Amino acid sequence: MINFQTSPDQYKHWKLNVAGPVATLTMDVQEDATLNEGYKLKLNSYDLGVDIELADAVQRLRFEHPQVKAVVVTSLKPRIFCAGANIYMLGTSSHAFKVNFCKFTNETRCAIEDDSQHSGRRYLAALNGTASGGGYELAIACDEIYLVDDGNSAISLPEVPLLGVLPGTGGLTRLVDKRKVRRDRADVFSTLAEGLKGKRAKEWGLIDDYFPTSKFQEKIDARVREITNDATTVGEGIKLNPLQKELKPAGVEYKFVSLVLNREQRYADLTVQGPERDLPTSPDAIRQLGDSYWPLQAYRELDDALLHLRVNEPEIGLVCVRTKGNIDDVLAVDQTLAANKDHWLVREILSYMARVLRRLDLTAKSFFAIVEPGSCFAGNLLELLLASDRSYMLNDAEAEPTAVSLSTLNAGGLPMSNGLTRLESRFLANPKKLAEVLARTEPLDAEQADEAGLITFVPDELDWEDEIRVAIEERTSLSPDALTGMEASLRFAGPETMDTKIYGRLTAWQNWIFQRPNAVGPEGALTNYGKPTQAKFDFRRT
Amino acid sequence: MINFQTSPDQYKHWKLNVAGPVATLTMDVQEDATLNEGYKLKLNSYDLGVDIELADAVQRLRFEHPQVKAVVVTSLKPRIFCAGANIYMLGTSSHAFKVNFCKFTNETRCAIEDDSQHSGRRYLAALNGTASGGGYELAIACDEIYLVDDGNSAISLPEVPLLGVLPGTGGLTRLVDKRKVRRDRADVFSTLAEGLKGKRAKEWGLIDDYFPTSKFQEKIDARVREITNDATTVGEGIKLNPLQKELKPAGVEYKFVSLVLNREQRYADLTVQGPERDLPTSPDAIRQLGDSYWPLQAYRELDDALLHLRVNEPEIGLVCVRTKGNIDDVLAVDQTLAANKDHWLVREILSYMARVLRRLDLTAKSFFAIVEPGSCFAGNLLELLLASDRSYMLNDAEAEPTAVSLSTLNAGGLPMSNGLTRLESRFLANPKKLAEVLARTEPLDAEQADEAGLITFVPDELDWEDEIRVAIEERTSLSPDALTGMEASLRFAGPETMDTKIYGRLTAWQNWIFQRPNAVGPEGALTNYGKPTQAKFDFRRT
Repeated sequence: MINFQTSPDQYKHWKLNVAGPVATLTMDVQEDATLNEGYKLKLNSYDLGVDIELADAVQRLRFEHPQVKAVVVTSLKPRIFCAGANIYMLGTSSHAFKVNFCKFTNETRCAIEDDSQHSGRRYLAALNGTASGGGYELAIACDEIYLVDDGNSAISLPEVPLLGVLPGTGGLTRLVDKRKVRRDRADVFSTLAEGLKGKRAKEWGLIDDYFPTSKFQEKIDARVREITNDATTVGEGIKLNPLQKELKPAGVEYKFVSLVLNREQRYADLTVQGPERDLPTSPDAIRQLGDSYWPLQAYRELDDALLHLRVNEPEIGLVCVRTKGNIDDVLAVDQTLAANKDHWLVREILSYMARVLRRLDLTAKSFFAIVEPGSCFAGNLLELLLASDRSYMLNDAEAEPTAVSLSTLNAGGLPMSNGLTRLESRFLANPKKLAEVLARTEPLDAEQADEAGLITFVPDELDWEDEIRVAIEERTSLSPDALTGMEASLRFAGPETMDTKIYGRLTAWQNWIFQRPNAVGPEGALTNYGKPTQAKFDFRRT
Repeated sequence: MINFQTSPDQYKHWKLNVAGPVATLTMDVQEDATLNEGYKLKLNSYDLGVDIELADAVQRLRFEHPQVKAVVVTSLKPRIFCAGANIYMLGTSSHAFKVNFCKFTNETRCAIEDDSQHSGRRYLAALNGTASGGGYELAIACDEIYLVDDGNSAISLPEVPLLGVLPGTGGLTRLVDKRKVRRDRADVFSTLAEGLKGKRAKEWGLIDDYFPTSKFQEKIDARVREITNDATTVGEGIKLNPLQKELKPAGVEYKFVSLVLNREQRYADLTVQGPERDLPTSPDAIRQLGDSYWPLQAYRELDDALLHLRVNEPEIGLVCVRTKGNIDDVLAVDQTLAANKDHWLVREILSYMARVLRRLDLTAKSFFAIVEPGSCFAGNLLELLLASDRSYMLNDAEAEPTAVSLSTLNAGGLPMSNGLTRLESRFLANPKKLAEVLARTEPLDAEQADEAGLITFVPDELDWEDEIRVAIEERTSLSPDALTGMEASLRFAGPETMDTKIYGRLTAWQNWIFQRPNAVGPEGALTNYGKPTQAKFDFRRT
């Protein structure tokens, strides 16, 4: 079982040093500290375990070290920054694992860019040696890239020429969409195994600058000073403590989140408990609560549960999303968050909630939201329903109140990868109705919610149990691959962004290539990398 | 060898009737007239042969019947409109053929929408019976959808529940992006094998209206009258005559296009001959020339050569694009086209040139443009260079002039699928430079073209032959699959549109699923469709 929880004192591959407004994130991968057997992490190559630490470090910077303005990402290894994802790890992994690995590493790189965009931290890739493949893809997720000019160090994306696969962590998309490199140059670069050194790399826009070895550190330091010169002070950070969770044979129990696996029927019940009553409303009091403040703790638990489902429970095809609690208490939390959204900690909490919801959007499982008496799909928790592929709401006038409710957070603050809110995506056909729905402040019962266009089905109490049971049975009987492709196509209507291009276009192509005999067959390039045998291709173009 | 040329007198599956401003395009698929053996085209199901006729009919409407304002797409079969792509054809086809089949049918549907958008013809899908799978995908490519209400007829996308694959002809994307159907309803519809009948289909926005059998024809006629009431008359159409082409063992020769296959080295030389001198400059004189007018004939030949390369020459991985002729003559044609772009025939010619160039953008082969003395990469032919993955231009001051040149058509009129011009896509990083380049009216030699950012490499005469030879050898040695994924990622920087979502996101996912054992393995759903054996799935979600 893969555990996504870690902390700096447990890191094996990264060192996180913070000195005032400057953080240094140094890669020093331990060859033998691998997540699985059968490969060694030479030359700062990485596996999922290495990336879990990186994701944790980026997250901690935001919550624990809010004063940091510049993050220098570099390596402790001489003449090598990072050799990318470990090829032998990829070559020996299942298709599903490769796909999940790429998705998580993509999310980590998008989290770096999310930090730049929303919290203004600048990430500097200080390439003290060669950055190849995923190494350059990590660099290109940073705001600025500086390469040492030692006559040897280069940047490269050797996946196509050497391995017969794509740079699968957003590299191709970021080349032409983020750094806006001319596509013919991107084409040359992406087919050149040895890559490019400083001069041409800068000319083509692949790096920002290059410096001789003797001046490298000095130049990086100078750039860091420029960034941190006018650093404003913010309050002190909060500590992210280890999540308390209990692993059970049939699931995981957290404080606010419960995951119950119905393995035989291949579906899970994922229940989120709403907040306690009377939570603090001032930023100072929230900082006192720290990571036990409901929005932070519940969403950290939800994030962990989603990652657990993805990687450790591949056979679960459907997740029934449920909530328990009081609608007013959820709305009170949303009101506090919205009122204080410019405070650094609240901003971090909101950005994090948005990232967790996007993790759900990108999870290759079906989601059905189930709205029953005692549930609290309101405000931020209503996003769970809107993110689901369908929703079912009990329509029973006799039962204790069953309602859903909107808050200002549904109008903004928790955007999807396509840049829209989930309600905007839902009401693309009818923006006027969107405005009407957003104006409703009272809780909506099943018929009102149906009328408002928020719910898929509202069975009455006679049909309820049968309808849910049949829906679950039907969904879990379908081809899991067809569902993945269908959901990826239906979940992201409207505009596309660099993120959706990475997860949609690039990931889909990479998944395709990861199955092709030319990559993973007995004579494929990935299979034969580093062996005395040579790859042999079926040259028919598809 | 598959032949993409046809004409109404040769149609086996469609009838095209034109009466004044109304065309009726009637599907009546002949079961036994299949392109390959091993399946029967029952219930108006289709194979590539059926779609080649449809593509031809849409094309002919635009050139031969410009007065048509409304196109009614319907079926001659009782109680069935169209059952979609033939499943046994899909089940017995190679992966590469399935992918090429879906790409062509997608291009046909996009051509229908291109006609609506640019030429204002309205397409009405008159569903006189059930439209399932590709049948509904054809309907949703039309502007309006009307379904007969006979107690039985339905629309459906049964691919996911019945076949374990996606509706691969844009259906999912058009559901949420064109008709803007709510994604939860799209989810329900796309997993419901039996589909939906009139009332709910209309409620959910899947069709525009439904009428009882007795009123169906009358209602369609009434709607057609509304559309054609204020029809303005345009000039008479021109005839699209059969292309003259000579098939040779090593290629195809047309009048203006030559395709020479170097099969052993797996690359082709594709040469386009520029226009004759002193072509007419008035729309009337152009109509006199008809389909022998250079822009129309050369691009029809180019289109045919591209389709031939895709489907009949799968092992050719690289196309070296060359031109021959006089730059001034190309620029003169561009000037005529630009000056008369509002004339219906010139508009049709320009839209067609743009579609052919987009066909190139979407062809899964590498393209290198080779600029040598005597070439004429200018204006519309410069788009061939800009569409290529790379360009090489001889830099030899002694040689006879080698130049490229811009025209106003490079600034608009020949857009990519992403809505941008190829120059806009190229200069995303530097819009100022784009404006400077567009302002240059004189021919540019190699160094000027390099400086202007138009060319990838400008080797001198000493290096020229070796550099081209090595580039070809290197390119054709790489994994064809990795190249396809890489090129699909690098060719479309910037914004995404419904078209790019269909070709990028949806197609990539469909290609992935088309390889998965759950679809095409011995126990896969596609393999087992219609057999007594049942599909068995590996339920691990990826």
